[in-house]
Amino acid sequence: MNQLYGNAVVGQSGGPTAAINATLAGVIRGVKEHIDGGLIGTLYGMRNGIDGFMKERLINLSAYFDSEEKLQLLEHTPAAALGSCRKKLPKLGENDAFYESMIELFKKYNIRYFFYIGGNDSMDTVAKLSAYTKSHSYEMVILGVPKTIDNDLVGTDHTPGFGSAAKYICATVQEIIRDCAVYTVPAVTIVEIMGRDAGWLTAASAIGRVVNGIAPDLVYLPERTFDMERFFSDVRAALEKHPNVVVAVSEGIRFADGRYVGEGTQTGATDAFGHAYLAGTGKALELAVKAEIGCKVRSIELNLPQRCAAHLASATDLCESVSTGRAAVKCAGEGTSRCMITAQREEGEYRLTFVPRDVSEIANKIKYVDDSFINPEGNHVTDACCHYLLPLIQGEAHGCFENGLPKHLILE
Amino acid sequence: MNQLYGNAVVGQSGGPTAAINATLAGVIRGVKEHIDGGLIGTLYGMRNGIDGFMKERLINLSAYFDSEEKLQLLEHTPAAALGSCRKKLPKLGENDAFYESMIELFKKYNIRYFFYIGGNDSMDTVAKLSAYTKSHSYEMVILGVPKTIDNDLVGTDHTPGFGSAAKYICATVQEIIRDCAVYTVPAVTIVEIMGRDAGWLTAASAIGRVVNGIAPDLVYLPERTFDMERFFSDVRAALEKHPNVVVAVSEGIRFADGRYVGEGTQTGATDAFGHAYLAGTGKALELAVKAEIGCKVRSIELNLPQRCAAHLASATDLCESVSTGRAAVKCAGEGTSRCMITAQREEGEYRLTFVPRDVSEIANKIKYVDDSFINPEGNHVTDACCHYLLPLIQGEAHGCFENGLPKHLILE
Repeated sequence: MNQLYGNAVVGQSGGPTAAINATLAGVIRGVKEHIDGGLIGTLYGMRNGIDGFMKERLINLSAYFDSEEKLQLLEHTPAAALGSCRKKLPKLGENDAFYESMIELFKKYNIRYFFYIGGNDSMDTVAKLSAYTKSHSYEMVILGVPKTIDNDLVGTDHTPGFGSAAKYICATVQEIIRDCAVYTVPAVTIVEIMGRDAGWLTAASAIGRVVNGIAPDLVYLPERTFDMERFFSDVRAALEKHPNVVVAVSEGIRFADGRYVGEGTQTGATDAFGHAYLAGTGKALELAVKAEIGCKVRSIELNLPQRCAAHLASATDLCESVSTGRAAVKCAGEGTSRCMITAQREEGEYRLTFVPRDVSEIANKIKYVDDSFINPEGNHVTDACCHYLLPLIQGEAHGCFENGLPKHLILE
Repeated sequence: MNQLYGNAVVGQSGGPTAAINATLAGVIRGVKEHIDGGLIGTLYGMRNGIDGFMKERLINLSAYFDSEEKLQLLEHTPAAALGSCRKKLPKLGENDAFYESMIELFKKYNIRYFFYIGGNDSMDTVAKLSAYTKSHSYEMVILGVPKTIDNDLVGTDHTPGFGSAAKYICATVQEIIRDCAVYTVPAVTIVEIMGRDAGWLTAASAIGRVVNGIAPDLVYLPERTFDMERFFSDVRAALEKHPNVVVAVSEGIRFADGRYVGEGTQTGATDAFGHAYLAGTGKALELAVKAEIGCKVRSIELNLPQRCAAHLASATDLCESVSTGRAAVKCAGEGTSRCMITAQREEGEYRLTFVPRDVSEIANKIKYVDDSFINPEGNHVTDACCHYLLPLIQGEAHGCFENGLPKHLILE
């Protein structure tokens, strides 16, 4: 590909995380440091992802981020500063007019570089746009920049945003275990953790096992079929050892017949991509334990703070998220296109290298928790799993505080 | 009262907080600094409150806490390091044998000083024991040391533990508001906050209003009757202003007929096993908004982390909690008994003084949120409320971390 001179646009898409703005800051830094005044002229931000782009809702990020202070504040601000969307692009061949009008907008703003920060669904957008532009005369660079707390993208060691969610979950579960330990009455506490398909976040609740020996008594991931009778027997065995049993469960655990354990406590609503909207797995198990075992039982859904608790982000994650954004700009400057930036973990001491990979081989696939990371009984993770996850939660990024409260950057 | 020479015992009781161990550390520090080698010989800790004391489950705290490092770690450890209980003492005159055996234990361990750290129910224990020992020949000093995230003890400006819970709630709500702002689709997010009788914690969710202008759109406290039709109309009005409406509600809000909103709404939903789904307050309102307004709606129960998130404690609260424990020992040394240590806020710049007050005038009463702190519509707090609360959340105490995880002191 010839060197392309023009402007760039960056968008954020899908569910927010505590680190997606750090990746945005990385793209901004990359443009400023490496290519400013060179290949890339102006860096635009699209409001609310591709949805806002089609409505020409753009902001000149090159002009807005005129200070290091603003960039640092952006890096510690949770959720998507540009706004997000959950738009699914039309299948190729089904609505060419949509893609044509998108290309017209690229031409209008002289955009030759397209960066899209998101998870699995967003990589679908990147893959479709990549495929469409292959057969189109307008030359441009299209890159996916990963983020998802779920850590379920294939082809990469782990995803930006995951480490911060993992750290929040693991630290909060440590505190919950302390809280539950104060009474002598037998009690079961069920902590419901995000993760519809892959159990990475729930696995992270157990990291403490290789740090201080403190972890939930039982851990259930969606990678294993959930059996209620086995669960009761696991809980009974745990209660025999000590009175304060803590259980971590993925929201997405299912019975052998495919039904979600949490099904029925929701109305069966689905999101724009047709995914079932889940909530209530913990509550369902709470009611089951109460009915079957009869002891004191409660459920805790960690909910949104898992993805937005920037006050307890992983310093490692934020740093890697910035690096991922920077790497995307570097790859773009070298002419790499139709790829997602992946992270490869080197052998030995923990260290990542960032490598672009064909996005069509990444989109719409799911990376599950490795078999070797789940114990044979299917009710806990292995030490190998904890050791794999441990480097990702190192360092505390507590964010910026002012007058007792977190200070966030708001892009008005 | 004559000066008493003997040992002391301290206990923790009721629900844990992020600061109750700081108060315990204050008692330990007080004994070490002021009276060690003087009036008080050994400081014992009772395991699981008065319940464990009656079983002689004691730990020698004077011996255990032999380093500043241990005390600092204790101050940043959430929940009750000594364990807790929820035991209600018998009414006076109904079971003298119980009190007699307690006095026998005091004699056995030569205990002349009794410190009990707790909330409303624990002050009932202190008041009963105070009343019983009045008519008993065994001389001793009995003091209540306050803690409760609920901030509902009368006679004191606010309670140790409240500031940390308030800070966690307020900061988390700021992050949730950022998270909710990323989409353009109209949506209502309902945040359920602890507080069965008094709405202090829910009020704290709004502090940001006088700091950065960011607060929930609507705030409902148990001090005001909850009306579903007025709520719908409030939500509709808020949705007309912007698409991402955030509502903070106390778990304890009730309808005019006295029913809790969380127990009064029949959802009809069942879980995977056909059990009726008992909605919480937030969940009940979520289903009501979905049925009536039909927009996207979710509920978030902040749950246990409100009282155990030591990783985001208020530095002011921890400092005051230590001071309260210290003040109790100082008062005891001066012969004050049958009191609870209260905090009085001075006029002008924020500053507290600690004053003992007759515990019988404090126990079994509830301090509600002032009328002047709630707006006339009953759907928000006033600026005066936010200004009153703001000093209590100043400073970030992020706790001790080791290898990426919080480090806690565990009294084996």
